[in-house]
Amino acid sequence: MNKGCYLAIDLGATKILSAVFTSKLALMGRVKTLTKASGGTDAVLERVFESAELSMKKAGIKLSDVVAVAIGVPGTVDPRTGNVIIAPNLEWHQYPIKEVLEAKFELPVFVENDGNLATLGIYEVEYSGKCGDLIGIFVGTGIGGGMVFGGNLFRGASSCAGEIGHMVLKTSGPICGCGNRGCFEALASRKAILKQIQERQSKGRKTILREIAGGDITQARSGDLRKAMLGGDKLVEEAVREASEHIGLAVASLVNLLNPAVFVLGGGVIQALADEMLPIIKETAESYSMRGTFRNVRITVSKLGDDAGITGAAALARRNAQLNQ
Amino acid sequence: MNKGCYLAIDLGATKILSAVFTSKLALMGRVKTLTKASGGTDAVLERVFESAELSMKKAGIKLSDVVAVAIGVPGTVDPRTGNVIIAPNLEWHQYPIKEVLEAKFELPVFVENDGNLATLGIYEVEYSGKCGDLIGIFVGTGIGGGMVFGGNLFRGASSCAGEIGHMVLKTSGPICGCGNRGCFEALASRKAILKQIQERQSKGRKTILREIAGGDITQARSGDLRKAMLGGDKLVEEAVREASEHIGLAVASLVNLLNPAVFVLGGGVIQALADEMLPIIKETAESYSMRGTFRNVRITVSKLGDDAGITGAAALARRNAQLNQ
Repeated sequence: MNKGCYLAIDLGATKILSAVFTSKLALMGRVKTLTKASGGTDAVLERVFESAELSMKKAGIKLSDVVAVAIGVPGTVDPRTGNVIIAPNLEWHQYPIKEVLEAKFELPVFVENDGNLATLGIYEVEYSGKCGDLIGIFVGTGIGGGMVFGGNLFRGASSCAGEIGHMVLKTSGPICGCGNRGCFEALASRKAILKQIQERQSKGRKTILREIAGGDITQARSGDLRKAMLGGDKLVEEAVREASEHIGLAVASLVNLLNPAVFVLGGGVIQALADEMLPIIKETAESYSMRGTFRNVRITVSKLGDDAGITGAAALARRNAQLNQ
Repeated sequence: MNKGCYLAIDLGATKILSAVFTSKLALMGRVKTLTKASGGTDAVLERVFESAELSMKKAGIKLSDVVAVAIGVPGTVDPRTGNVIIAPNLEWHQYPIKEVLEAKFELPVFVENDGNLATLGIYEVEYSGKCGDLIGIFVGTGIGGGMVFGGNLFRGASSCAGEIGHMVLKTSGPICGCGNRGCFEALASRKAILKQIQERQSKGRKTILREIAGGDITQARSGDLRKAMLGGDKLVEEAVREASEHIGLAVASLVNLLNPAVFVLGGGVIQALADEMLPIIKETAESYSMRGTFRNVRITVSKLGDDAGITGAAALARRNAQLNQ
C-alpha cells in the first residue's frame, strides 16, 4: 500500500512544509516548521531533514517507501543541475541543493522554483491537468507566480521565467525589493499594502490596524487586514482595494499578452481576503482586457491554500520519476 | 525551378504587400499597394488579388507553380477556421478570409495575425530557427508583436495571445485606442509620440516637426521624427527618448515574465530611429530586468524591415503545406 510514495518539501523564507503523497498524489502526512533562515544554511537543512522525517512518521511510512523527492525553493533554480542560482531570502547563491539532498536521502531529488511548483500542483491536482493553459499568481509577503503552457511548466531560456511579481505595472511607481520601480509586487503584495497604510497613517489618516497588529503596522498579517476591514477601517479597505485593482491590471496584461484559459490566485493575502478582493480583481481585469480575449478566461482562487507548493512538489517528483523509469 | 513556390500576402491597414517565395523561402518578387480600407471589403479583396497577380508576374511564375498561400491580417484570427475574428482597422468582423481566398486561388490558404507572422518570419529566415524563444515587438502607428516559443507561434487559449501593445505599463496613464489606460501602445507608438509632441507644443514648447510634416504634427511619419532630431529638435528628442524608455520597460517586463532568448524589434518607428532608440531601450531594459535573467538576453533590430510579414507568411505556408502533405 505504501510503496511508491513521494516526499514533497516546500522550503519557504519563513516556513518549511514537508509532506508525503501517495502515487496518486493524495496527501498522507504533513508537517510545518519555521525556516529560521537567519540561522544559516546548515541549520536550515537540518530543519528540512527533521521535518521530512516527521512527515514520514506522520504518514506511517519509511524512507524506503519513497521513490523520489522534490523541493520548492524561493528563488531561481537550474532544474537540470538542481542548483539554486539565487534565493535572496535564504541568502543562497549557487547552492547545490539537489546534490546535498540526494546524498542525504539516497533517492532522486528534483528542484524547482516555489511559484512554479504551486502552479504545477494546482494544475495537476485541482484541475486534473484538464484546464488548458494556466497562470498562477500568489500574493503574500511578495508576489510569486508560475505558468503551465501545453501541460508543462514554462521556464524560459535560462529557467527564470514566471517572475510575475516583477512585471512593470506603473512606471515611476514605488521602489520594489528588486531595486526597480513600479513592479507588480511593489504595488499589491502584503508588504506594499502595509507600506501604503503606514504612509497614509503618518499623514493623519486613522486606522485600527496598528492596534490589531500589536503596535507595528509593518508586522500585520493578512488576517489582521481582514479583521481591520471587518471593523470598518476605511484606510485598510482603501489600500486593499487599490491592491486588488493592481492585481486586476496584472491579470489584464497577462490576458492580452498570453491569453491563458485559467488564472488561479493564491497566497496569504488572497486566502485571507478572497471575498473582498476577487470581485474587484475580476472587474478590473475585465475592464482592462481585450474584450474578445477575456470572454473565455476563468479567474479563480485555489482551494489548495498553503498545500499548493507541496502538492506541486509531489506532482513534479511523480512526473520526473516516471520519465526516469 | 519554379515549382513549389509560396504566395505570401501581408494585408495591412495602410498597405498590402504581396510576394512570391521559393521553397527555400528566398524572395522572388514583391509588390506594394495601398489598402484603401475605406473602400470596403470587396474593393480591398480586389486589390489583394491584383497585387498577388502582379507579384507572380514579377517573380516570373504562374499560379500553378504555387503550392500554398498565406496571409497576415491586422487583427485576431482563428487559425483553424481561417476566419478573421476582428480586424478593427479594416472594419472586419467574423470575415471568412480563408474561404474567400481558397475559392479564388483554388489552393490551400492559411491565415494568421500580422505580428505573429512577422515574428515567425524573423525566427525562420533571419535566425534560421536557431535562436531559442523569440519575442517580436513592432513599433509603428500602433504596437504589435508575436512570440515563438519552442519553435512554434504561441497563440494562447483562443488564439489571441501576443497583444504586446496592450500590456499595461502605466496605471492611470494615457488612454489607448483599445479604450483602456496606460497600455504600452499608448506610451510608445508613433501615434503616442506625436500626441506627446503636440500636447507640449500647445503648451508653448518649440518644435520644427510641424513644418517638416507639412503643417500637421499628427500626420508626421517616422522619418520626419528622425529629420527633426537631426535638426536639433529638443522636444522631438525628448518624446522619442521617453518612448524608448517605455519600450525598454516593456522588454524588462517580458524578460522577467517570459525569459526569452531574443527580442527582435521592428516597425516603422524602429526602422527610422534604431540608432537613437536602441541604446536607450537596452539600457532601460537592463536596469529594470532581474539581473540573472537579463544576462543572456539579446535585443536586436530585425534586418527584414517591411518584409518580415511576407517572409513569415511564406514560412507559415511552407510549415502548413508540409504538415498537410
